[in-house]
Amino acid sequence: MCQYLEVSAAASRSSCGYHRAEYGALMAMEGYRGFLGLLVSALLVGFLSVIFTLIWVLHYREGLGWDGTALEFNWHPVLVVTGFVFIQGIAIIVYRLPWTWKCSKLLMKSIHAGLNAVAAILAIISLVAVFDFHNARNIPNMYSLHSWVGLTAVILYILQLLLGFFVFLLPWAPLSLRALLMPIHVYSGLLVFGTVIATVLMGVTEKLIFALKNPAYSTFPPEGVFTNTLGLLILVFGALIFWIVTRPQWKRPKEPNSVLLQPNGGAPEGMEGSMAMNFGNMDKSDSELNSEAAARKRNITLDEAGQRSTM
Amino acid sequence: MCQYLEVSAAASRSSCGYHRAEYGALMAMEGYRGFLGLLVSALLVGFLSVIFTLIWVLHYREGLGWDGTALEFNWHPVLVVTGFVFIQGIAIIVYRLPWTWKCSKLLMKSIHAGLNAVAAILAIISLVAVFDFHNARNIPNMYSLHSWVGLTAVILYILQLLLGFFVFLLPWAPLSLRALLMPIHVYSGLLVFGTVIATVLMGVTEKLIFALKNPAYSTFPPEGVFTNTLGLLILVFGALIFWIVTRPQWKRPKEPNSVLLQPNGGAPEGMEGSMAMNFGNMDKSDSELNSEAAARKRNITLDEAGQRSTM
Repeated sequence: MCQYLEVSAAASRSSCGYHRAEYGALMAMEGYRGFLGLLVSALLVGFLSVIFTLIWVLHYREGLGWDGTALEFNWHPVLVVTGFVFIQGIAIIVYRLPWTWKCSKLLMKSIHAGLNAVAAILAIISLVAVFDFHNARNIPNMYSLHSWVGLTAVILYILQLLLGFFVFLLPWAPLSLRALLMPIHVYSGLLVFGTVIATVLMGVTEKLIFALKNPAYSTFPPEGVFTNTLGLLILVFGALIFWIVTRPQWKRPKEPNSVLLQPNGGAPEGMEGSMAMNFGNMDKSDSELNSEAAARKRNITLDEAGQRSTM
Repeated sequence: MCQYLEVSAAASRSSCGYHRAEYGALMAMEGYRGFLGLLVSALLVGFLSVIFTLIWVLHYREGLGWDGTALEFNWHPVLVVTGFVFIQGIAIIVYRLPWTWKCSKLLMKSIHAGLNAVAAILAIISLVAVFDFHNARNIPNMYSLHSWVGLTAVILYILQLLLGFFVFLLPWAPLSLRALLMPIHVYSGLLVFGTVIATVLMGVTEKLIFALKNPAYSTFPPEGVFTNTLGLLILVFGALIFWIVTRPQWKRPKEPNSVLLQPNGGAPEGMEGSMAMNFGNMDKSDSELNSEAAARKRNITLDEAGQRSTM
């Protein structure tokens, strides 16, 4: 039905107000209703996860505070679920919102980087909370599998953020380097996101075993059932984000002067062959940051990397 | 370098001995050395995970048996890591082994289904072991997040296996249904695999907290450090499988009469446009199972689904 997507530089400057945002008015997304349904579901489930975490610590646990007690520990799940799960999830799919396609790629990159930076800061504060709590109570740090995997995820996330900032956001990295690193950037982003969710599930498991003694976790107390449900919500949120971000038809279109993706899916450019990658590639806005010569070189580079995209 | 891949029906019948295996002798894979290095790493890390699990239950725990005691419980991690992690991981990447590209798609599908069936049987036996152990000891079943997520994963895995068998292995499903379900099959396969790994990490966490009392898990006893390392190995195995299976250049090529993927990545067929999906599509062997008329219809169907692949 709405299988073609027309983008024209001849159209008026977009409302996004950014200097290179010159997409046309006619913009149709394949399966737009499906996308919208899944997006709303993801936002709902993600928001519900944050609410469930707050209910857990405020109603079932001791509440929130910053005094070295359990009140301080409780910031750990709240900040992780809010920042490291929910905000990171949104950051992952931000390029896929069709109403942002008229905005410039640089603006969207900044939003992507900004959301990830906020998530990283919340993740770091969540670590401070738990280390503070452990130290005040003389509980050893870093002995559990949860802590090993979790700290690894935070470190990789920060490295990923720095790499993204210097290579993809700042305009100086050569296109060959961008082409080389983009698939790694996308893969490790999704890997860290999945690992964070696994770590949260381990954290919930740990906390419930430690905290639920009388009545025990094994007797199905309300807190156990409630927090297990939180775990499931977080898993479903992750599953929705993964579905949204791996649908090829919901990719942000390239940003050339004029592109017409034909109804039969014909490839307008040679490099979009069977080697085309669903995610983990670059679009023309990256080349526009560089010289014309570099752009010519890019055709070879990207062909070698065998990829194209906007994620 | 080895960027093109030539397949010719004119070549002699392959050694795979299957009636539709008529690929030519010249078969080059982009980044073959990289693929081989990652494959060997994945096999090594997966094999090491199984060995570590055996050392864990045989050296640190009580050993193996089938008597309702901890000996029976210990089959749970052994069978899960062997079947649900290692064998499932191999089943996921089996289409990507370039030396199987001369084998027929039907043979490869049978191997894919067979490995997944073995994994499912081992997963079911592993559940029997843990339920038996719980019942003999009067420990409640299904109270933990680990059990909720784990049982969900096993049920989804069996549904996925049945769906795969009836829709993709048996020759009767219409191509429109195959085209519709393939992206879901691929997505849910990878989702279940990731969920299984998360469940294993929860299981390790649970078991170490329950079992390590004197000395406690928090005092870094050798068993704790060893089994945390096992958790990391399983995570790395999952990461390697995900990398291998999402590289577009390592996909099994289509099985047409003659295909030449050009060095510049030019799309030989119209439907391989920017809508092309990295994974979750079908190849010609699916249409060959059906009539010529269905094959003609397929061009439309697949274009609608916007995808093509072999995974």
